[in-house]
Amino acid sequence: MPAAQTKDFHPVKLPGVLAPVLTPFDADLQPDAAMFARMCRWLVAQDAGLAMFGTNSEGNSLSIDERKRLLEAVLEAGIPATKMLPGTGSCSLTDAVSLTRTAVSNGCAGVLVLPPFYYKGISDDGLFAFFSELVERVGDARLRIYLYHIPPVAQIGISEELIDRLLKRYPQAIAGIKDTGGDWTYTERVIDRFSSTGFEVFAGTETILLKTLRRGGCGCISATANVNPAQIIALHRQWQDPEADQMQQALNDLRAVFQAYPLIAAMKSALADASGLAQWNRLRPPLQALSGQQASMLARQLDAHGFSLRDF
Amino acid sequence: MPAAQTKDFHPVKLPGVLAPVLTPFDADLQPDAAMFARMCRWLVAQDAGLAMFGTNSEGNSLSIDERKRLLEAVLEAGIPATKMLPGTGSCSLTDAVSLTRTAVSNGCAGVLVLPPFYYKGISDDGLFAFFSELVERVGDARLRIYLYHIPPVAQIGISEELIDRLLKRYPQAIAGIKDTGGDWTYTERVIDRFSSTGFEVFAGTETILLKTLRRGGCGCISATANVNPAQIIALHRQWQDPEADQMQQALNDLRAVFQAYPLIAAMKSALADASGLAQWNRLRPPLQALSGQQASMLARQLDAHGFSLRDF
Repeated sequence: MPAAQTKDFHPVKLPGVLAPVLTPFDADLQPDAAMFARMCRWLVAQDAGLAMFGTNSEGNSLSIDERKRLLEAVLEAGIPATKMLPGTGSCSLTDAVSLTRTAVSNGCAGVLVLPPFYYKGISDDGLFAFFSELVERVGDARLRIYLYHIPPVAQIGISEELIDRLLKRYPQAIAGIKDTGGDWTYTERVIDRFSSTGFEVFAGTETILLKTLRRGGCGCISATANVNPAQIIALHRQWQDPEADQMQQALNDLRAVFQAYPLIAAMKSALADASGLAQWNRLRPPLQALSGQQASMLARQLDAHGFSLRDF
Repeated sequence: MPAAQTKDFHPVKLPGVLAPVLTPFDADLQPDAAMFARMCRWLVAQDAGLAMFGTNSEGNSLSIDERKRLLEAVLEAGIPATKMLPGTGSCSLTDAVSLTRTAVSNGCAGVLVLPPFYYKGISDDGLFAFFSELVERVGDARLRIYLYHIPPVAQIGISEELIDRLLKRYPQAIAGIKDTGGDWTYTERVIDRFSSTGFEVFAGTETILLKTLRRGGCGCISATANVNPAQIIALHRQWQDPEADQMQQALNDLRAVFQAYPLIAAMKSALADASGLAQWNRLRPPLQALSGQQASMLARQLDAHGFSLRDF
């Protein structure tokens, strides 16, 4: 066990539902830190956690320095680090180490780490070496890594064998996984095999939140927690209630509305609509805003669902 | 036409054969700038160009600052910027702009730019917006972008329609393409459609160098130009000679030896062997060095081919 890891550290329990916080941009396409902090504050007020710099945050469209500055701005705004699970992965080991250190030294509850995703056909040995270097170089007993399994986007996934090897070598630092693989048999196997040791499995979408909780998983880190946090959190609280299946169905129905569009753009459009701030419609290329026609069609569909953003 | 672009700028002609320069690492896995500069000097002495920070340079395993420092070290070592085509692409627009500016302001002959490769299913509109922002933000008449088409790795490719739109909008800034698509019909179409306007098509492997030159392309930017520059350059010079097909076959035979192994690791192993510097065997995770058994098998195969690194 590395010297910096001790038995005395007690990790913070993450919220059961986290949003990959959408990133607002100014007219020059720079991240708007004040607006981002307001978004984070609103999510935390709903009891959602902050998985900032995730896929739906356009995290990889930001430089490492931009991510650090946003993180620092949110901390300076007084939002508690214990609610935070920033994405700190990078194809570059040095960048991943640097951003992870910033997160850990500021007390973030955990970090969500993509595998290095540029090279394809990478072996588990290579990924093990990458995560090992990350843990050893950060060298901080407070480090809590959540592995980010999202093969539809990153192409490089996290195998069960890799989880097993990492957990055996770094039982304290390897805290859990965000599973956006879309393969329930994988999710089941990972929960069954690893969760008894405290390894936390978060579904990558609320559409399988109930299944995940029933199987022994922890919750979800889901795009649409940006726009529907209260209802998702309600299911997380009431999953053992008789109405849970009905609640799940309502979540799925709303998700389907958003998912019929490019998802990040659709969520930003909904925030722009709810806040009256057209600025929310900006995405960094290569991603793009909805067309005017798409935006108004989405708005009508959301109205028909009785959708509203509480206190936004 | 953007204000910064003028008719008076005369771009430098790149060498016909460029190597994605292998990156040496020290014991702490930091790039070794002095060793890198020596490698660049050796390549230039063979008349090869320097496509540093490419795929085979482990370019995406380096931070933007690491790439800038290496570039500056090579310039300080007196190696001419006119031989340089650094890879300056990034998933983050800000990083791509920053690194491209460094390259252009230092007089690099061109930059090789990957499309932003994290998000999948990106439209040509989104990619056009990305490259447009890059050109406009760099805002320098000396900017010469070579589009990097490598769908087997980046997944996101460069369509003919995208080339057409970019060339029409930025006829001076869009200089050419590196085509590592492995699809000869695409290569042919791109050469036939765009090369008459001066758009330069470089094959991504020397195995199609002769075909590319015969069709009207410019040369190649190829991994194995790190270890076999002289022979590849000889074919580039003598492609109209009667022995050209035989020369191509010899290149292919040697390439096949390297390609039977993980390519970057195999080339580094050959450099370690030739130089006696075991340090060449280091790769940054997730990539890994050859095993001892692989290294000795490769060495024997290279001996059997009469392979040697001239003056290395």
